[in-house]
Amino acid sequence: MPRFFVDGSDGAVRDDRITITGEDARHISRSLRMKVGERLDVSDFSGMIYSCEISSFTEDSVELSVIERKLCESEPSVKVRIFQALPKGDKLDTVIQKCTELGAFDFTPVLTSRCISRPDDKSAKKKCERWQKISAEAAKQCGRGIIPAVNEVCSFDKALAQMSQCTLALVCYECEDGNSVRRHIESNLSRLTSGSTVAIFIGPEGGIAPEEAEKAQSAGIVTVSLGKRILRTETAPLFALSAVMLLTGNCE
Amino acid sequence: MPRFFVDGSDGAVRDDRITITGEDARHISRSLRMKVGERLDVSDFSGMIYSCEISSFTEDSVELSVIERKLCESEPSVKVRIFQALPKGDKLDTVIQKCTELGAFDFTPVLTSRCISRPDDKSAKKKCERWQKISAEAAKQCGRGIIPAVNEVCSFDKALAQMSQCTLALVCYECEDGNSVRRHIESNLSRLTSGSTVAIFIGPEGGIAPEEAEKAQSAGIVTVSLGKRILRTETAPLFALSAVMLLTGNCE
Repeated sequence: MPRFFVDGSDGAVRDDRITITGEDARHISRSLRMKVGERLDVSDFSGMIYSCEISSFTEDSVELSVIERKLCESEPSVKVRIFQALPKGDKLDTVIQKCTELGAFDFTPVLTSRCISRPDDKSAKKKCERWQKISAEAAKQCGRGIIPAVNEVCSFDKALAQMSQCTLALVCYECEDGNSVRRHIESNLSRLTSGSTVAIFIGPEGGIAPEEAEKAQSAGIVTVSLGKRILRTETAPLFALSAVMLLTGNCE
Repeated sequence: MPRFFVDGSDGAVRDDRITITGEDARHISRSLRMKVGERLDVSDFSGMIYSCEISSFTEDSVELSVIERKLCESEPSVKVRIFQALPKGDKLDTVIQKCTELGAFDFTPVLTSRCISRPDDKSAKKKCERWQKISAEAAKQCGRGIIPAVNEVCSFDKALAQMSQCTLALVCYECEDGNSVRRHIESNLSRLTSGSTVAIFIGPEGGIAPEEAEKAQSAGIVTVSLGKRILRTETAPLFALSAVMLLTGNCE
């Protein structure tokens, strides 16, 4: 079944009618040569999938009737929030693209004491727009049911406050050797029911400072180890997110 | 304990003596100002770590006596072989760098029917040299005990023959929806003892062709699903390798 995505620019969902415009409308009518009465799926990135029937064509648009609404089955049952200390260069681009594919719920870039990249407000805002585009493109390509939001760059303290609100929060820390991410997730599995939130914090190139790890621990957030090999700051979130998805049964 | 790496260019291991030369020798004597009798660890990428004591300095080198040899504890118990269909551009660079961090044993680029990148022999050889350098750099940075080898580009049939020799072999296939990578690894865990080999095959951008999947199945190699989100060709090996490492207890 062909699947199309609508958002502000390409179409709109109103009650049980959907209008597809632009590139996608031309693709449906001219390339796919679909006819009135034929079916297709539409996602509006609300986490829902709409099974639709084509009701009419105009020159530039396709009108659809919604036959059925269902939860998008590619969306994970747990919402994993990635808090990533700002890395150098374009590494966050990679993190956002790959973690969107792997099922992240949203992203929050964080400034920690050892971050080398420290953009001013204007530049940070511009970067956020760019990251949001990367997330949207990746979400479409891999068939997500939502577009993961990229939040504003925030301080470590603010990040900790937000992480404290999550069902489970993990600070990946290379000096931690007792508590592995696997054991920690497995021993908290019963809490990770549908709709629960998991926060993952990843430090910058130089790691998080010991006083930041202590601050997290004082806030009741555990530090976890990702194993004996030292992962780069842009590899660590991919691994930690894979671990959460895998162990919560979200890769079946 | 400071750790140094020796290979052909930077030093040599002979019986219970190690000579460190070049940049590292200067670092030990001038930057770290280490003295005779002080201790450091050396890896020669054989999977062993040598605990050494400094026995003497010359102008350009440092002589060490080996006190103890031990297995490098960052090396995983299972050898995961990545068979990756040649992707476009420099995506294999990323795969090799990240999978070295995540613990891969070696890499084999494979030509499948849908590969768009099809380098000639000369260009393939040059690329292999480049990939081997990337693997070596990543191995040093993340503290591996070996440098994962990058093998010559080979045909799909050759890859299948090699995969058949492994303890467990998985072909990641987006049209597979019954057999998840997690369930498959978990149900084979008892076979994945220390020193066993796991082969992971990842298709190119357009996926593996149905007839290639059938060929693998006829050769007794199972196809597995990585979940409901379609991972890019350069993201899939990171996830599949993470899954093997995590589920075999190699990230503790």
